[in-house]
Amino acid sequence: MSFDRRIYNFAAGPATLPEEVLEQARDELLNWQGLGTSVMEISHRSKEFMAVYEKTLADLRELMRIPNDYEILLLQGGGIGQNAAIPMNLMPLAKKPKADFVVTGIWSEKSVKEAQKYGEAHIAASSQAQGFQSIPDQRTWTLSEDAAYVHICANETIGGVEFSGFPKLGKTPLVADISSNILSKAMNVSECGVLFAGAQKNIGPAGVTIVIVRKDLMGHAMPITPSIWDWAKEAANQSMFNTPPTFPIYVSGLVFEWIKRQGGVEEMERRSQLKSNMLYELIDGSSLYENRVDPMCRSRTNVTFFLKDEGLNAEFLEQSSAAGLAALRGHKAAGGMRASIYNAMPIAGVETLVEFMREFERRA
Amino acid sequence: MSFDRRIYNFAAGPATLPEEVLEQARDELLNWQGLGTSVMEISHRSKEFMAVYEKTLADLRELMRIPNDYEILLLQGGGIGQNAAIPMNLMPLAKKPKADFVVTGIWSEKSVKEAQKYGEAHIAASSQAQGFQSIPDQRTWTLSEDAAYVHICANETIGGVEFSGFPKLGKTPLVADISSNILSKAMNVSECGVLFAGAQKNIGPAGVTIVIVRKDLMGHAMPITPSIWDWAKEAANQSMFNTPPTFPIYVSGLVFEWIKRQGGVEEMERRSQLKSNMLYELIDGSSLYENRVDPMCRSRTNVTFFLKDEGLNAEFLEQSSAAGLAALRGHKAAGGMRASIYNAMPIAGVETLVEFMREFERRA
Repeated sequence: MSFDRRIYNFAAGPATLPEEVLEQARDELLNWQGLGTSVMEISHRSKEFMAVYEKTLADLRELMRIPNDYEILLLQGGGIGQNAAIPMNLMPLAKKPKADFVVTGIWSEKSVKEAQKYGEAHIAASSQAQGFQSIPDQRTWTLSEDAAYVHICANETIGGVEFSGFPKLGKTPLVADISSNILSKAMNVSECGVLFAGAQKNIGPAGVTIVIVRKDLMGHAMPITPSIWDWAKEAANQSMFNTPPTFPIYVSGLVFEWIKRQGGVEEMERRSQLKSNMLYELIDGSSLYENRVDPMCRSRTNVTFFLKDEGLNAEFLEQSSAAGLAALRGHKAAGGMRASIYNAMPIAGVETLVEFMREFERRA
Repeated sequence: MSFDRRIYNFAAGPATLPEEVLEQARDELLNWQGLGTSVMEISHRSKEFMAVYEKTLADLRELMRIPNDYEILLLQGGGIGQNAAIPMNLMPLAKKPKADFVVTGIWSEKSVKEAQKYGEAHIAASSQAQGFQSIPDQRTWTLSEDAAYVHICANETIGGVEFSGFPKLGKTPLVADISSNILSKAMNVSECGVLFAGAQKNIGPAGVTIVIVRKDLMGHAMPITPSIWDWAKEAANQSMFNTPPTFPIYVSGLVFEWIKRQGGVEEMERRSQLKSNMLYELIDGSSLYENRVDPMCRSRTNVTFFLKDEGLNAEFLEQSSAAGLAALRGHKAAGGMRASIYNAMPIAGVETLVEFMREFERRA
């Protein structure tokens, strides 16, 4: 299959980017800002790149309304890197290194496993026995008195399960993995101690990781913490203790500008609600498709569904691909189908998918 | 200053890229391989991206003649990340965690400091007292009997000091930081246990780190090693234990193809010799410029020089910039000037610089 036009790409991450952003990156790829060089080719410490960096942080702060007592770091190593960095930076806050985890899918499970290298990872609640199709009621969580923090994954991309808001925890800091729903809705940052996100879902190209940390939580890192993940050290070095991934940061900055032009996070939230509702309504009204997630915690960014007749899976994937609706196969750990509909997925893309799914059901 | 053409960019890293590579990246930025999507927007695990990944590794293996008992990993976190990862992966090979270091500049100094978090970092030799202008004679190195490995920085970008070849060490594995001279000359990989390099100097955009490891040196990592830097784990996961920086990897692959088209590493070495000789000859024959590095270990990729009349520094930088010869200011730790002339710097760029420097001296 070969396309001479842009298709609708429902990949879970790396994921689709706004076409306007790609066009701008293309147009200035060889000669950026009249410097006679690409943005990829200049020093991260040059005044031109530092201006990109500062603007990118300022735009993110504005978009997410991040209070001034929070630092924004742009690091490397993805969410899985932060799964190690977070316990190394935060567990020393407890008497004995320890943290609580609420496990609602494969991502929070991975966070537990990595944290165990650095201290006790107590599972305060888990929906594993229910196949990760719901979020355990907060009243059932067995939170520890002596945990340094409580870790949640705000949206599990594989199962398609999303917290509707942050749990209220009292004085223990909440750490939220927002890799897949950052900037897709208003979030009250001050309800968290740390928020972190790989860029490759709702923001930009893979390779940059956003870490938002309440400043009093920095400066406690274990001595074994690699310098590039020691938040206090990175904050003191403008996230440039090592050479940052400049091109991914630049594209992320273009995406933040694009979100601002669209109307900000409120508009992203409106669209995300609209797009996911369109799909869930179709699925719920269908006799071919089903979604298995507790309706109270269905993800707005990753809509998972199954064909009741699994014998039709291959045909569904083949025909959708041919129609320019790419990457609908579910994660191999979950099976079925998944439409990842992050900020950059146009409403028209979801409309086209809904139309295709209706037509496929009609013919099935 | 604004240019409507490409300039010659002597930045130390992120550094200039081959124009052909940038043109190809630009032309296919919105629709790659007829998929109707950017290479940035597809899953790292898709067959299309896996093909890029496999081809990139195969080309690097061919270019560097990397034997089959060496694994190639593409990681995140840069050389400074590997400064932590290397001791975590290798120090357990010694009875007590320990490694030897030969310190020839600021980069090897940083490696020592980071390694101290994980065990003993013994300084076997250092040229610090001589201002990092030479490489200590190997006969003076105080190598340890019980070190897990010996670390060198094959080329120090800040001082402009380069090992002419790898030291012969007997059975202790050599770890070589080749960030700034990878692919600029033939290297005998089997003389090393581990070679590593950030991409942003001789290869591609910042954000990807190449680690070449002899396979028997994997599988010994400390339990505290973050998963994304546990070499054995990454090898088992095709360097995709977390989402890799796909766009930097793709551009690196385009650069490898470009090197092959140019005639391979042998041709890069010939050009590098030619380019650096042109500059050193000019400097040595000049009464304005001087290079302070022991002629036995002058870098072919980072030519440092000083104006004997430092009062002319500002003028030199201003006029060179205006002439489209960018980023000649030396690192702040070294002062003076530096021309970084990696593989992607055309011979014509160095000719233009030499001409400018001659003319500047004539007028001075």
